[in-house]
Amino acid sequence: MTIKIGIVGYGNLGKGVETELKLNPDMELLGIFSRRNPAQVASESAVYHLDDIQQFKDKIDVLVLCGGSRSDIPEQAPELQKDFTTVNSYDNHGEIPAHFDSINEVALANNNVGVIATGWDPGLFSLNRLVAEAVLPNGNTYTFWGKGVSQGHSDAIRRVDGVKMGVQYTIPNDELISQIKDGKDVSYTKTSSHKRVCYVVADEGADQEAITQSISTMKDYFEGYETEVHFIDEAEFKQQHTGMPHGGRVIRRGYTDDENMAVYEFNLELESNPQFTAAAAIAYARAAHRLDKEGNYGAKSVFDIAPAYLSPKSGEELRRELL
Amino acid sequence: MTIKIGIVGYGNLGKGVETELKLNPDMELLGIFSRRNPAQVASESAVYHLDDIQQFKDKIDVLVLCGGSRSDIPEQAPELQKDFTTVNSYDNHGEIPAHFDSINEVALANNNVGVIATGWDPGLFSLNRLVAEAVLPNGNTYTFWGKGVSQGHSDAIRRVDGVKMGVQYTIPNDELISQIKDGKDVSYTKTSSHKRVCYVVADEGADQEAITQSISTMKDYFEGYETEVHFIDEAEFKQQHTGMPHGGRVIRRGYTDDENMAVYEFNLELESNPQFTAAAAIAYARAAHRLDKEGNYGAKSVFDIAPAYLSPKSGEELRRELL
Repeated sequence: MTIKIGIVGYGNLGKGVETELKLNPDMELLGIFSRRNPAQVASESAVYHLDDIQQFKDKIDVLVLCGGSRSDIPEQAPELQKDFTTVNSYDNHGEIPAHFDSINEVALANNNVGVIATGWDPGLFSLNRLVAEAVLPNGNTYTFWGKGVSQGHSDAIRRVDGVKMGVQYTIPNDELISQIKDGKDVSYTKTSSHKRVCYVVADEGADQEAITQSISTMKDYFEGYETEVHFIDEAEFKQQHTGMPHGGRVIRRGYTDDENMAVYEFNLELESNPQFTAAAAIAYARAAHRLDKEGNYGAKSVFDIAPAYLSPKSGEELRRELL
Repeated sequence: MTIKIGIVGYGNLGKGVETELKLNPDMELLGIFSRRNPAQVASESAVYHLDDIQQFKDKIDVLVLCGGSRSDIPEQAPELQKDFTTVNSYDNHGEIPAHFDSINEVALANNNVGVIATGWDPGLFSLNRLVAEAVLPNGNTYTFWGKGVSQGHSDAIRRVDGVKMGVQYTIPNDELISQIKDGKDVSYTKTSSHKRVCYVVADEGADQEAITQSISTMKDYFEGYETEVHFIDEAEFKQQHTGMPHGGRVIRRGYTDDENMAVYEFNLELESNPQFTAAAAIAYARAAHRLDKEGNYGAKSVFDIAPAYLSPKSGEELRRELL
């Protein structure tokens, strides 16, 4: 029997889940639930209005919540958790502990499972930060992001006066990465660890110098970072800069005694950030369904789930093929 | 209360566990158990004869089995499992499924836990092979080992006539690794993926050409591989080639749709292979103790253990600091 999946929200992530489900024959997409008029949602899958989701209470095994972390997930997740086992990719790191607690309460009260903060960061990066620290207690962990498109920073530059189109790439400091792996003393700060490279299509007649100045000095986003602003034309933008690549790495440099260094590194290079995030959410949806069937209710994070639950293979197959 | 640990076997791995335990304040070494006369085992820790281990049945929480995989573990593990929760680093991949079953039977009959095949391969590499495949079902996984010392191959060259000292480094094929990550078609075979580099101190008057010939054509070990044999003098050998570095990487190249590639990579660079293997076994010993306290008995592998169990931190701390 296939695992019946519902998708809530049909932005980049929701579309990613729809795409990735086709690669997982043990799963079946029952429907996409949107706040928009279903007739206006362009998908080959069944689309329903989110208001009608209650009717699917007994038909759906796991809901994958694909709304945004800023307002959608905090609002929708606790409400939907009452009737469904859910998985989300909530990525507001500072609010994750409170989000876990709120989902845990509803999930325990309603005998279902809520897996929060899947994806890659939070998600697989978190998993590696934990394993690395547990195995190498004497050491330091460094997380680097990119090369990749930061949605938040791209949105920010598009709000600058005179900017018609814009995208921001986060670029990790490769020299710092080499120094860490070579065992050198490093000063890893938020601003020294990454550089920010922007490609901008300016409005006709706009003051490019003023745009560069506005971007480079933008608080919380660019100030303090090494920032490059490149002006290009619309044709180049559309050809080169509409993808959503991302990735990054978690490095822990530890010492197993006074002399011996150990470098633990986890690295992702993704041509499509939303598709990979979706793919991770799907693996955790499989786990959520198993936990639910076992009656192991409540909120869970990637920390609480045995890896075997992510795979469609049996324990015997896994030991034979992958151990 | 600290977790009370016993070490069985005092070779490189047992010494590694003794060293790494000092980095884990939630654990305490109760004693080393050896088949040798305890008076002749040079350690600052308490050493007992393995025959006396029964007396520690109620004092030790977890035994870390550090004997060899060829004969020690298959013999000792099922026997010791009767009285103890155990962790081992059994690394005979082909025999792991049967080993799991034999430990599972004894552990279930005696209400304890046996975590098998910890370390890095099997162990953390296996974990990553599983997660990578679950998240990227459309793809291929490649494992590379090295640069590092292969104990088995070093033993093999030391058995060649005229060889006084010898060490073998396994070197991964970096070009093949680049091709995989660049999305190129590759032919990954056992022999194309690694090269074998040997450093040999020859007996005085020995025929170096004959030694090179014997090594390069040795079945199961070198035949078919690109093999280099370098002759050096004893002083250089002692200075440069007595360490036990190792490492390697697991790469999965997957496709999240017809166009978008995703590269998942896990990479270890270890200056001391036995110390890192010991460090991983210790994290799994912590997990074994928790499973035991929960009454979750039986054999387990890295696939069956939720990552949170590896860390001394609480779920709340982990979510706040690492998620």
